[in-house]
Amino acid sequence: MTGPIITLLTDFGLEDTYVASMKGVILGLCPTARLIDISHLVAPQDVRAGAFLLAECYRDFPPGTIHLAVVDPGVGTDRHGLVLQADHYCFVGPDNGLFSWVLRGAVAWEAYSLERSEFWRASVSKTFHGRDIFAPVAAHLGKGVPARTFGPPRRPLLAPWTDAIQTGTELLGEIIHIDHFGNAVTNVTRATLERFGSPSSLAVSVGGLTLGPIADTYGDAEESGRAVALIGSGHRLEIAVNRGHAARMCGLRRGDPVRIARREATSDAC
Amino acid sequence: MTGPIITLLTDFGLEDTYVASMKGVILGLCPTARLIDISHLVAPQDVRAGAFLLAECYRDFPPGTIHLAVVDPGVGTDRHGLVLQADHYCFVGPDNGLFSWVLRGAVAWEAYSLERSEFWRASVSKTFHGRDIFAPVAAHLGKGVPARTFGPPRRPLLAPWTDAIQTGTELLGEIIHIDHFGNAVTNVTRATLERFGSPSSLAVSVGGLTLGPIADTYGDAEESGRAVALIGSGHRLEIAVNRGHAARMCGLRRGDPVRIARREATSDAC
Amino acid sequence: MTGPIITLLTDFGLEDTYVASMKGVILGLCPTARLIDISHLVAPQDVRAGAFLLAECYRDFPPGTIHLAVVDPGVGTDRHGLVLQADHYCFVGPDNGLFSWVLRGAVAWEAYSLERSEFWRASVSKTFHGRDIFAPVAAHLGKGVPARTFGPPRRPLLAPWTDAIQTGTELLGEIIHIDHFGNAVTNVTRATLERFGSPSSLAVSVGGLTLGPIADTYGDAEESGRAVALIGSGHRLEIAVNRGHAARMCGLRRGDPVRIARREATSDAC
Repeated sequence: MTGPIITLLTDFGLEDTYVASMKGVILGLCPTARLIDISHLVAPQDVRAGAFLLAECYRDFPPGTIHLAVVDPGVGTDRHGLVLQADHYCFVGPDNGLFSWVLRGAVAWEAYSLERSEFWRASVSKTFHGRDIFAPVAAHLGKGVPARTFGPPRRPLLAPWTDAIQTGTELLGEIIHIDHFGNAVTNVTRATLERFGSPSSLAVSVGGLTLGPIADTYGDAEESGRAVALIGSGHRLEIAVNRGHAARMCGLRRGDPVRIARREATSDAC
Repeated sequence: MTGPIITLLTDFGLEDTYVASMKGVILGLCPTARLIDISHLVAPQDVRAGAFLLAECYRDFPPGTIHLAVVDPGVGTDRHGLVLQADHYCFVGPDNGLFSWVLRGAVAWEAYSLERSEFWRASVSKTFHGRDIFAPVAAHLGKGVPARTFGPPRRPLLAPWTDAIQTGTELLGEIIHIDHFGNAVTNVTRATLERFGSPSSLAVSVGGLTLGPIADTYGDAEESGRAVALIGSGHRLEIAVNRGHAARMCGLRRGDPVRIARREATSDAC
Repeated sequence: MTGPIITLLTDFGLEDTYVASMKGVILGLCPTARLIDISHLVAPQDVRAGAFLLAECYRDFPPGTIHLAVVDPGVGTDRHGLVLQADHYCFVGPDNGLFSWVLRGAVAWEAYSLERSEFWRASVSKTFHGRDIFAPVAAHLGKGVPARTFGPPRRPLLAPWTDAIQTGTELLGEIIHIDHFGNAVTNVTRATLERFGSPSSLAVSVGGLTLGPIADTYGDAEESGRAVALIGSGHRLEIAVNRGHAARMCGLRRGDPVRIARREATSDAC
């Protein structure tokens, strides 16, 4: 028998002891827990970025995994804490929209407000609910306490979600993440794109460039310095440069608009 | 039965293989060990910063946890290695002051010099005792070898500890850590502060600013750009800016003096 | 019984979810796996740097460890995937030279092309074989599937390896890694050096400096700002500055040539 998997996603960084304190608390309550870091480099207090990262990877873990996520600018105010059971996964963290992108993809879910303090640390600080409330709750979930035990039902807060939208002959989206390689990931999903047209017939306009057709792999951008639009491993349209940093080379930033239209022009270099 | 927890705190960074080598050595000797990183981003060779971080979080782990800490500018010189049993925790690393902040908080402790080389790697390099001495000793501790087995008793080296001091009508402290969010953590503990006066009656002078009263939570600093003094999750006075980076916005640095007095003025913005 | 150890070395960075996705996939297939990060900060797409880091530490893990390494600029092109059994260790990743430094040190090895897709994820993206092919194969290895099961034998691609060479009265090498402390690690091994002469009789020329004799430990460079040449924990000649950052202080970079000759001059400061 292996223990429960508990993942951690935070904006706590890697130079402090905040993440370690949460892990210590979990192991004290649930000694068999297996702890896996998703990332602790979410931009500080950027709930939307955390929500995106969580949604990108939570399904790659086995059913039953508990995802503990803390990006919590409202810690110590009256924002609620949340436990969410969505399909086969469990989520714990602040109720500030962090789980709204998971919720959109869920077939069935139930959520509860964290109110029963007997599952918290005896002393709760006003600035570190990750250690004092969310970590203990995740540990109790790992020990088999059902989600409904932690408090009354609650409808989770949903953050505004920017979907790509179709306007006349165009699909309008935006860049929602720049990854470690400089790839600019957009909110245009493969499904949305394919409903609009065949990828090979489409052109993508972004940051003053026109790219197309939509390629299959980074290697399709043979020439260095040439940007390519492709559908990435998360089933989203992204802008990449083969062996280069697309965001830096093409001046792309999170929030930049992306326009997809039937193809006429050829690709630009950047 | 779950295996022993061994944490790791170093200044080795994340881009090299030094941490992995220590973990490999531990798992070779103690296959059931559960390895938890505290941080590997202690500023290079900054023993005092390492000592602070260790003291901040070691008690959040379950009793019996073994804390392996290596910030070791004197590696290869005649500095000693140490195993320390302090209350319910065990510590292994160089005897250079790294455990002095733990020792101050310990009720009972015993310490031993690492001298019995049969517990080390067969070949010991002159520049990497983390892998060749400390990791194997931590692994043997994890297997149940008692601390006293590793060598003769030794009085650990104590690094100079700067406590906040009271001079006349003021409490004088300093900033001892800037965290990932830019919060400036001081050496003024909640206990010291409360002996001096009620937090709501006190003003804090730091970096040319006067802040007060001492708040409860980040959210109390409603206006952006306004610094707030509060007691953080480690029970220390800290300077924060709600949703901002206090150190950068207010020009605060480690070592900066902090003065606490009875309150007269209102808070400044920075 | 403890589960298999699977290490991970990638250039994926720490701010995205790519590493977590690989771990989730492994745990889904091999729930007892113990996952250890080597590093995820290999310079993007720098196969040679990844090969060096892997070779530096893989033997510090217990026999039977599975090393999963993904630095994969050719993902989605026709480069092969590889499983390599070398002495008592197993390696999985792209066949692009990443394992060539391990192979040079191996007494016996066998390697196979990853071709049997029944061991992959059901749907394989063109841009993330780490998650879709290499992670599942590592998990199956962890469950005891023999290396030869994954595909036909294949001779691994060997990256050009720059050895130190002896020309007349000199040994010529180069800097192959700058570590977190600023130490400049060279391709001159202890064995090569000792065949050439006694370390104490040798001088090292690098970046306009002449250093020597070759020291034993960082502490031998007593004066601050003085560079020292020593044989590091990986049995390679390296250039260090006691309590300083040698690469920055002496202007050293990866690829810089290093010349070793019989000693005449004294050390320079930098």
